[in-house]
Amino acid sequence: MQDVPLLISRILTHGSMIHGTSQVTTWTGDGEPHRRSYAEIGARAAQLAHALREDLGVAGDERVATLMWNNAEHVEAYFAIPSMGAVLHTLNLRLPPEQLVWIVDHAADRVVLVNGSLIPLLAPLLPHLKSLEHVVVSGVGDRSALADAAAQAQVRVHEYEDLIAGKPTAYDWPELDERAAAAMCYTSGTTGDPKGVVYSHRSIYLHSMQVNMSQSMGLTDEDTSLVVVPQFHVNAWGLPHATFMTGVNMLMPDRFLQPVPLAEMIESERPTHAAAVPTIWQGLLAELLAKPRDVSSLTQVTIGGSACPPSLMEAFDALGMRVCHAWGMTETSPLGTIARPPAHAVGTDEEFVYRLTQGRFPAGVEARLTGPGGERLPWDGESAGELEVRGPWIAGAYYNGTDAEPLRPADKFSEDGWLKTGDVGTISSDGFLTLTDRAKDVIKSGGEWISSVELENALMSHPDVAEAAVVAVPDDKWGERPLATVVLKEGSTADFDTLRDFLAGEGRIAKWQLPERWTVIESVPKTSVGKFDKKVLRRQYAEGALDITQL
Amino acid sequence: MQDVPLLISRILTHGSMIHGTSQVTTWTGDGEPHRRSYAEIGARAAQLAHALREDLGVAGDERVATLMWNNAEHVEAYFAIPSMGAVLHTLNLRLPPEQLVWIVDHAADRVVLVNGSLIPLLAPLLPHLKSLEHVVVSGVGDRSALADAAAQAQVRVHEYEDLIAGKPTAYDWPELDERAAAAMCYTSGTTGDPKGVVYSHRSIYLHSMQVNMSQSMGLTDEDTSLVVVPQFHVNAWGLPHATFMTGVNMLMPDRFLQPVPLAEMIESERPTHAAAVPTIWQGLLAELLAKPRDVSSLTQVTIGGSACPPSLMEAFDALGMRVCHAWGMTETSPLGTIARPPAHAVGTDEEFVYRLTQGRFPAGVEARLTGPGGERLPWDGESAGELEVRGPWIAGAYYNGTDAEPLRPADKFSEDGWLKTGDVGTISSDGFLTLTDRAKDVIKSGGEWISSVELENALMSHPDVAEAAVVAVPDDKWGERPLATVVLKEGSTADFDTLRDFLAGEGRIAKWQLPERWTVIESVPKTSVGKFDKKVLRRQYAEGALDITQL
Repeated sequence: MQDVPLLISRILTHGSMIHGTSQVTTWTGDGEPHRRSYAEIGARAAQLAHALREDLGVAGDERVATLMWNNAEHVEAYFAIPSMGAVLHTLNLRLPPEQLVWIVDHAADRVVLVNGSLIPLLAPLLPHLKSLEHVVVSGVGDRSALADAAAQAQVRVHEYEDLIAGKPTAYDWPELDERAAAAMCYTSGTTGDPKGVVYSHRSIYLHSMQVNMSQSMGLTDEDTSLVVVPQFHVNAWGLPHATFMTGVNMLMPDRFLQPVPLAEMIESERPTHAAAVPTIWQGLLAELLAKPRDVSSLTQVTIGGSACPPSLMEAFDALGMRVCHAWGMTETSPLGTIARPPAHAVGTDEEFVYRLTQGRFPAGVEARLTGPGGERLPWDGESAGELEVRGPWIAGAYYNGTDAEPLRPADKFSEDGWLKTGDVGTISSDGFLTLTDRAKDVIKSGGEWISSVELENALMSHPDVAEAAVVAVPDDKWGERPLATVVLKEGSTADFDTLRDFLAGEGRIAKWQLPERWTVIESVPKTSVGKFDKKVLRRQYAEGALDITQL
Repeated sequence: MQDVPLLISRILTHGSMIHGTSQVTTWTGDGEPHRRSYAEIGARAAQLAHALREDLGVAGDERVATLMWNNAEHVEAYFAIPSMGAVLHTLNLRLPPEQLVWIVDHAADRVVLVNGSLIPLLAPLLPHLKSLEHVVVSGVGDRSALADAAAQAQVRVHEYEDLIAGKPTAYDWPELDERAAAAMCYTSGTTGDPKGVVYSHRSIYLHSMQVNMSQSMGLTDEDTSLVVVPQFHVNAWGLPHATFMTGVNMLMPDRFLQPVPLAEMIESERPTHAAAVPTIWQGLLAELLAKPRDVSSLTQVTIGGSACPPSLMEAFDALGMRVCHAWGMTETSPLGTIARPPAHAVGTDEEFVYRLTQGRFPAGVEARLTGPGGERLPWDGESAGELEVRGPWIAGAYYNGTDAEPLRPADKFSEDGWLKTGDVGTISSDGFLTLTDRAKDVIKSGGEWISSVELENALMSHPDVAEAAVVAVPDDKWGERPLATVVLKEGSTADFDTLRDFLAGEGRIAKWQLPERWTVIESVPKTSVGKFDKKVLRRQYAEGALDITQL
């Protein structure tokens, strides 16, 4: 067979030739959205590559950063930068400024493409971005804040459209090694410095094929996908690459991620598919219930990032939008599982049960569960262990190691190279994953695991409980035991005995898993993205700052 | 990203674990079909690999031949042989015996798996198969003819079920190089010796993903595919591998390829998809029209091998079976194009026009047209040239070359490594291929090409013409000119002037393309597979054996 490397330039060429009339539509918020065909995207990506190489001197596998919303120019960057052999580095605009500075420095970004609307975010950082030499601005937004900061930081500012104007609309894309770096993305872990995940041409190409498989998202050129998941977040789940393989149209919200514009763009542009995290969708649901609109085009919604609450899934089902769970992470490109019910469950009561799981592993993702003692656990739907995965689009190390000494922390990679996901769950005999906890939050009690999430959910189902967080605390006899920290609703008089009896009732929680240590707190500490910050609670407990009742 | 090779063993493991309850159903012709789950196939494939290695001494990348119909045991061989590192060599049971002998010798097959029903074909060949040491027989069929021949040829005969019985149901599949040979298939060209096409693990893996993409066949585990296209013909178009990736069920007709059993298995097993060549489907249509049955389950039919006549497509549409054209060849794994109409044509008059083309190139297949003078031709739907293709599942050489000196005949591969398909046609601006002729049959007249097929179709649309073949003959002025050879219907009195005027009428054929040389023949010579044998006509013309009228 011919030895043809799997390259992003081939996806670009395919999309812009065979699906030249497919479109990227970008929401502008002021009437007419902006439309650009795949053929135009292809021509402009070539122009951008010429400009980056000839005008800005981008060479070799240099990183080129983007600080952009989802829009047509960001798609052009997605294809131009890797196709020319450089590495697309998407910056997460939601990160705290100091993390952004750290990441740009770590990746040694010399060029950043930025949307005009994000200048207020970028300008104050410029003096701190030591490696940066060029800023390329596209789209609307006041440029004035940039001029002074750039002058001070000795950074040159370019207008995107001026930079690419007049460049040739074709580029002789190089024949790269398919294992060469194509794109990178930093994980925003809660502990330690961010870690860079580097995607190769091969991994992106294979992942895109997977996204297009009928058991996965399985869209065609009759579809339009509303890509709400940001392009700075794991390559927008691979959608821009996947759509260029099949001619699926893209509807890009740019900065308009609020419920009202989302509802408007669904009604007027009539996408058939959307991809988003549950939080965004929760807001959209409230808007649609408050002000009904014609959203009948949208029949398939892929939800990932965190589990979709059953109530949200049912509410969207009622609107004719079928939610499909997917699970993944930055290190898995991200598609790791997708919850299409198996044939035998379709149309039965079991169907919803399957849809609430994280889903089934596709060909290309191998999975195993590792128990508290490092043992392999069976796929029986009962045994809970840490999920480990392997495959051609799963990270094998983090950025900035060397071939001789790759960056493979032992808490992230097994000795035989599998990725430790940090997620704890079960796998059914037919390969459906159900996640129950994060590995760092699970309570390791006498060689068994207790899920903190299960205890929290059970506690929060009690009418007197506003919020509850369960953390592991050291125990002489069992190693670890659960500590229940509870926020009571105003006026509640429930005591701990009542709550413990409630947990034990109706088979909610097994007796040996019931917490002995209890405390009432005013609110659960949260991280910047709103997740429970359990390390604060663990520290407070260790410092004796919590008033513990022992039952 | 992890460096995980794309191996057939991974497809097998995925299918037998994640889709363990999906089934291969084999038609038996005597009531109850035989059913085997993917989990069982996985276990038995491991047993077969143990038997081949431990009992028959299959080692390294040795070829193991199959002479089998489509059935569960053949699927087991499909996975066991490549997964263990050997090479599956499917023998085309329709080839003339002397070609089979040549091919087995060329591939140095030491082991052949054969269906009991094919013993009458194999037994007489045994004395001539010098490399052969073991015959493994599965399924029904009288074994008696084999014993004598095998004894005479010093070949050992084994029963498939006895051989695998008691072997371990797991096998520690080796981590092979994904570019290693996995399977091979000989082309039955009309000229010269057959040529071996070798598929790699990588090419089969990628091709399977492609088959499962939504723009391609795009089946899911809710589907059952009736695999009529033989497993000895380009890996049954990749279906056995593709189905194990997604859990699509397979319905295998074994030796029951006649219209009546096909109609019966469609009615009783209710497949949703079928893959076949037009000839088989033509017979099925006649049967269904003669004796209507409930074939409502079957909504999608992939037809390839040769173009599906519009009338056949319409007849199947009327039965609710939607025919989808695909084009490919042994050298292209085979999926080269598939005729899913573009979104803008769906539901319009254009839709049928698109469906009659050979289809659109998927991501992974690059195409170009080369004109009579070696120039590249535009994709304008008008310029006809020889189709050349490139991609990771396209052959780059034939079997038995070496790395230093690959077997790449100049009429089959361009200097820069693209496959010359030998097919002549046009490509539209949106990438739809329409084939008009074979390169060897096209008439090269004054630097332009005249399609022999177009002239033949136009001639055969005349009511007095039963058959017509057009071949190129040398011409002093133009290089080549068309010679029209015509079979008249009984009692016809049409003369050549009438026929030429008919061709020229209603814009059927351009004036400069009209033949000057005409002859009446009794019948068009045919090859063993029923195609026009034009080299016979060219030879007869060269020898002066035809009575030519010059207009």
